Amino acid sequence: MAKSADIYYKVDPWRVVETGFDKEYAVVSESIFSLGNEYMGTRGSFDEGYSGDGLIGNYFNGIYEGADLEKSGYKGIISRTEFIVNSADWLYTRIEADGECADLNTSTFEDFERVLDLKTGILTRSYTWILKSGKKVRLEFERFLSMKEAEIAVQKIKITPLNFSGEVILYSGIDFTQIHHMTGRSMWNVADTTFEEDGITMLGNTVSTDQSLFVSCRFQCDYEEKSDIREDKKLVRRFLLRAEEGKTLSFTKLIRNISRKGTTSQEKDAFQGKCAENSKILAALSYEELKEDTLKWWEDTWNDSDIAIEGDELNQQGIRFCIFQMHQTYHGADKGTIIGAKGLTGEAYSGNTFWDTEAYCLPFYIFNNTEAAKHLLEFRYLTLPEAMERAKALDCKGAFYPIATITGRECCSLWQHASLQLQASTAVAYGYWHYENITGDEEFIFEKGLPILIELSRMLATRGDWSADKTRYGFYGVMGPDEFQMMVNNNCYTNYMGKKTLEYTLDVLARCGAKAAEIYQEIIKDRGLTTEEIEYFRNIAEHMYIPYEKETGIFEQHEGYFNLPHIDIDKIPIEEFPLYHHWTYDRIYRNDMLKQPDVLMLMLMYNRDFTDAQLKSNYEYYEPRCIHESSLSPSVHSILASQLKKEEEAYKFFGFATRMDLDNYNRNTGEGLHTTSIAAAWMNIVYGFGGMRSDGKELTFAPALPKEWKSYSFKIHFGGDVLFVSVDKDNMKISTKKGSGIQVLIYEKPYTLGQEELVVPIAR
Amino acid sequence: MAKSADIYYKVDPWRVVETGFDKEYAVVSESIFSLGNEYMGTRGSFDEGYSGDGLIGNYFNGIYEGADLEKSGYKGIISRTEFIVNSADWLYTRIEADGECADLNTSTFEDFERVLDLKTGILTRSYTWILKSGKKVRLEFERFLSMKEAEIAVQKIKITPLNFSGEVILYSGIDFTQIHHMTGRSMWNVADTTFEEDGITMLGNTVSTDQSLFVSCRFQCDYEEKSDIREDKKLVRRFLLRAEEGKTLSFTKLIRNISRKGTTSQEKDAFQGKCAENSKILAALSYEELKEDTLKWWEDTWNDSDIAIEGDELNQQGIRFCIFQMHQTYHGADKGTIIGAKGLTGEAYSGNTFWDTEAYCLPFYIFNNTEAAKHLLEFRYLTLPEAMERAKALDCKGAFYPIATITGRECCSLWQHASLQLQASTAVAYGYWHYENITGDEEFIFEKGLPILIELSRMLATRGDWSADKTRYGFYGVMGPDEFQMMVNNNCYTNYMGKKTLEYTLDVLARCGAKAAEIYQEIIKDRGLTTEEIEYFRNIAEHMYIPYEKETGIFEQHEGYFNLPHIDIDKIPIEEFPLYHHWTYDRIYRNDMLKQPDVLMLMLMYNRDFTDAQLKSNYEYYEPRCIHESSLSPSVHSILASQLKKEEEAYKFFGFATRMDLDNYNRNTGEGLHTTSIAAAWMNIVYGFGGMRSDGKELTFAPALPKEWKSYSFKIHFGGDVLFVSVDKDNMKISTKKGSGIQVLIYEKPYTLGQEELVVPIAR
Repeated sequence: MAKSADIYYKVDPWRVVETGFDKEYAVVSESIFSLGNEYMGTRGSFDEGYSGDGLIGNYFNGIYEGADLEKSGYKGIISRTEFIVNSADWLYTRIEADGECADLNTSTFEDFERVLDLKTGILTRSYTWILKSGKKVRLEFERFLSMKEAEIAVQKIKITPLNFSGEVILYSGIDFTQIHHMTGRSMWNVADTTFEEDGITMLGNTVSTDQSLFVSCRFQCDYEEKSDIREDKKLVRRFLLRAEEGKTLSFTKLIRNISRKGTTSQEKDAFQGKCAENSKILAALSYEELKEDTLKWWEDTWNDSDIAIEGDELNQQGIRFCIFQMHQTYHGADKGTIIGAKGLTGEAYSGNTFWDTEAYCLPFYIFNNTEAAKHLLEFRYLTLPEAMERAKALDCKGAFYPIATITGRECCSLWQHASLQLQASTAVAYGYWHYENITGDEEFIFEKGLPILIELSRMLATRGDWSADKTRYGFYGVMGPDEFQMMVNNNCYTNYMGKKTLEYTLDVLARCGAKAAEIYQEIIKDRGLTTEEIEYFRNIAEHMYIPYEKETGIFEQHEGYFNLPHIDIDKIPIEEFPLYHHWTYDRIYRNDMLKQPDVLMLMLMYNRDFTDAQLKSNYEYYEPRCIHESSLSPSVHSILASQLKKEEEAYKFFGFATRMDLDNYNRNTGEGLHTTSIAAAWMNIVYGFGGMRSDGKELTFAPALPKEWKSYSFKIHFGGDVLFVSVDKDNMKISTKKGSGIQVLIYEKPYTLGQEELVVPIAR
Repeated sequence: MAKSADIYYKVDPWRVVETGFDKEYAVVSESIFSLGNEYMGTRGSFDEGYSGDGLIGNYFNGIYEGADLEKSGYKGIISRTEFIVNSADWLYTRIEADGECADLNTSTFEDFERVLDLKTGILTRSYTWILKSGKKVRLEFERFLSMKEAEIAVQKIKITPLNFSGEVILYSGIDFTQIHHMTGRSMWNVADTTFEEDGITMLGNTVSTDQSLFVSCRFQCDYEEKSDIREDKKLVRRFLLRAEEGKTLSFTKLIRNISRKGTTSQEKDAFQGKCAENSKILAALSYEELKEDTLKWWEDTWNDSDIAIEGDELNQQGIRFCIFQMHQTYHGADKGTIIGAKGLTGEAYSGNTFWDTEAYCLPFYIFNNTEAAKHLLEFRYLTLPEAMERAKALDCKGAFYPIATITGRECCSLWQHASLQLQASTAVAYGYWHYENITGDEEFIFEKGLPILIELSRMLATRGDWSADKTRYGFYGVMGPDEFQMMVNNNCYTNYMGKKTLEYTLDVLARCGAKAAEIYQEIIKDRGLTTEEIEYFRNIAEHMYIPYEKETGIFEQHEGYFNLPHIDIDKIPIEEFPLYHHWTYDRIYRNDMLKQPDVLMLMLMYNRDFTDAQLKSNYEYYEPRCIHESSLSPSVHSILASQLKKEEEAYKFFGFATRMDLDNYNRNTGEGLHTTSIAAAWMNIVYGFGGMRSDGKELTFAPALPKEWKSYSFKIHFGGDVLFVSVDKDNMKISTKKGSGIQVLIYEKPYTLGQEELVVPIAR
């Protein structure tokens, strides 16, 4: 991996601290100090404005715009794409004294500190602003998003003149002029604006998708004079503050943002209703209560979610940052919200969600917030109609899930991904299966999973084909998870996942038929599923071709992969990375180099299907061919290296994931956080060092302690209980919160867990 | 083949005749009645204007414009494309009487006839125009392009009032408002316009490529009054004619068009010079002389180029139309001109030239006009620098020739073609080799061929790679001639052609070193070619992998092709053709269906490398898998079917090529003629039924007579002489024009040819 850490923030177990401000890190810090509560997200931009490089970004889950693409002459290539849009800057502030404006790009300042408290979700920042005259003003900023009332955000600003008394002017407002940075265009028409006695309201509508955003705020502060400045898409109130030396002036802005995603009259009415009662609700808000509720939310969350590492401050901070971001990005507050590739922290990847959701994020939620996991899966149920449309566009029956989407429609304009990658579809089946395997929530699977599974199987039965001699079924012209091998036949991962999807469909069909005949009959009828179809599903599952070399135990990534020219990836000069920028497009595909795990990904997802000997052969064959250009790659390798007792390799691949963004490994954190990589970091500890496996009949553990650490502990929601696991060099200790008699395997031996700590010696 | 003939024109051995005008065929007829002389081309639009569907097109070889493409994030994908531009309508005419305008879309008319005389290159048209008042005017139009003075075009109009005397108004001018139809934009800035005493001149400059076009005309007619109408980009002279019943008024417009392709000051000076002497040159032109010269040119050309077929009027007309178009499109008048995919008859394929030039057109010129063949090859020499730039852009050394080009730069915006198809490059080597094999022109090969061959070999040595076990060299991630198999490895055609290119390079290097040491040393030095490189060329040529199944004698189209799912192409519903419009893009690539010959193409190009048994196995394997969606496909199959004595198949595939455009088989003749298909039609008779092979040491013949024919004859330029070949059901007769003692093989037996007819019985 041609990647190195760029350590900038202070290492601290519970906080991300920036001491002194380096402009070079301004944009990266905006991503790092992002706040989110699933409903909305705001980048860590400076409230008071900043004339240097920056990307003010305020996003709402599901608020998007679209753009027509150059029309392709070919069928199945999309003609319109969709992307999350930047919205209003509701933290808009300017601070003026002696005709000067506070601006960290041009002003003189000292004692700068910015702190993101992972324990509480509160972002604070302070510095002393030195005016040209020598006057000094201490500025303190605080902001948080309510974790209880998702529409509410809070900003608090304290101003203290340190060596003078006089006037300070504070401007505060709502700014709808922010553009969508990737297209350079504003995506909002402002429909209504009001200056109220103690606040501002603005209503914006997206330019083409008929969505709305109502942004409002209430000011709390003592001022001498106020006046209003109205611009085209920006409303600002000017407060003249009388400042006394040594005394702190406090300014609070309570913000309520109501977004309307849906376009039905029902949804429009509900939105109108929410807007109508706005002043009442805003008036009733209390800064203290909001803060208390949010602190409580985070306290509860950490109690059952924390991972503690003794002896490794860097990774301690790193993993907590990851866990914090996962909860910020998504916690199942709403059905139909998604996890964008960058969460709500930037515009890169257009706010689209990918198969990473089911493959990497879902395990975190299954074991931390089961309800959230269920809601995440429901997004695919809600967008089954769009997936069926997409299948039709691709000349298939059934459902073909998009590679990248906000609304369920395909947003990926590159046909080589959108048309050739089946893993978004098979990952949906995997997600439902994984969820059921852990929760046993058969009802949900029957009702919401089965319709999807039937349509997925139909797609698999029409997208695939039989080999020339008609003995083997498989998928031709595909790209597997490894995006460096394009347009291949019988990709092992794709075929295997296809087989698993079909088998799971048959299994759920059988169980539903036996246990819930009514639902079964209804679904069969709804879907028009015939016995012949079911038999064909069984037939292709049985004949699915899995390329495998018996002598070596190596699965062939795809038919013909073993004959490809070999590249010694260690000999590629470091300056040629990332390869997409330095190698011609097609050159990347002409050899045995991998971007990310493909066969190995499979061996993690269905880990217990494979022997350790098989895993070893495949790991040792594929890992040296992988350049880990995907941020998700190292964690998968770390987990499998742990299983193979390759402790050094496991640890080497691990560090990257937890601190991916904090240390800006890919030098693109400024575009937004690598949310799905963050999810993999959690798996890296729990599945990797903890050796947990969740794909078998029982939950299993096979823990080990990295020699660099003293101990570590993690928590797992399972069977309606919470498991507390800690590992040191001698023992694994495990207990449960409620003592509900959960059974697990540890080093393949069965144990029943209670509230009392079970101590199992670490296997050497 | 889901294609059928749409016979509209009258069948005639030497003419294309349209009797009565059907608007449905207006656009198709514009293509069919196109005139060209390599330098310029004009579609057969109605001189007097037409308010119905039409595509007025006037093109100049090498006059082009460019457009920036959506920037790709990937390396090696082009960011700008180039296309031939429509230019001024120099035939602009309007005819008015009683306030009515002649317009075949709205006027009443009778006795319409349009005739393209293939023997003379003269296009005539006449009809009787019936005014609302019942007045009848006979209109006769004639036009031709000078084949001696390429810049000169001639238009003659005759007007005869049949049943009245009175005024007729004729407008004649030059119209620079014509748009480039594909972009909908005018590509010309008009710089200078002049009404002269007896004519008009206009100077236009292309909007971005700094090229110029000077269009001028001189009028010859008796008129009563004249006046001038000047519009922004259009100059028109109005002639008031006094018409007497039964008397014919004659109007002649002599047109001189000077185009400037090059942008050097030298080229600009030359252009200025030509413009300056324009009025003198125009004044000296004589309609009669121009016509006489052109008739003579065509007479000479037909004397040595004609193919006569007895007993098949349809194909007789078809093949003469093809031969006529080949000479119109290109006859080697200039170095650096190209054969666009549609010649100079339309905008489709952007006027770009493809590998078809060397693969399909070159044989026609080698055996009809050796100098033209040489000039055609020189285009690739002149654009070697651009091919080297392209290779660099694709991370290769040496030269990578473009898939589609006007200026030598790649114009194909689809990376899957532009980056994956190597056949444009290997076809250049094939073209030089084929030319040398027939002409023995070693000097040309040493001077112009060798530098290209060295750079092509360098490209092949860097674009290809070694198999995993390092025993076999080949090309990975390619698309062969068959465009339905994309991103494949070790495509048999590509590897074989690569091997041939390398071997020919080594051969020419050795011969040049031995026979022309000075040139050799200079080239080696210029190119910096090392002994190690030469050895590596030898090494990869020797180890080139040619996928071949010994038991069956079948070459595998590419590694893994034999395992692909099989499609019974006869079961594809006819309404799903063309597949590109009805199947999703990727679906086309997921089976064993071919668009056009790939292995079989190879077996035609290097025919004598393969045994008849091998040809039979491969033909019988691949032909049933081929849907012939390329217009070039049937001819190749026809030729090989002839060789295999599959007479019915040979004849079935043949008819398509000769009448491809006349019968509008692909329903897109309106976009322009299928010029390269036309070239294949010639090969179809000479190589097919004539059984000629030109890839061995001797020229060979193995003629057969289709049972539908009485006899046929063709002419071949060879060894500085012309061979006259005729075939009837009993005998082949062969003689030469000069009796220069040429040796050939007939049915593999050697003969020396003289002026006296040699008679060889037809083999059964």
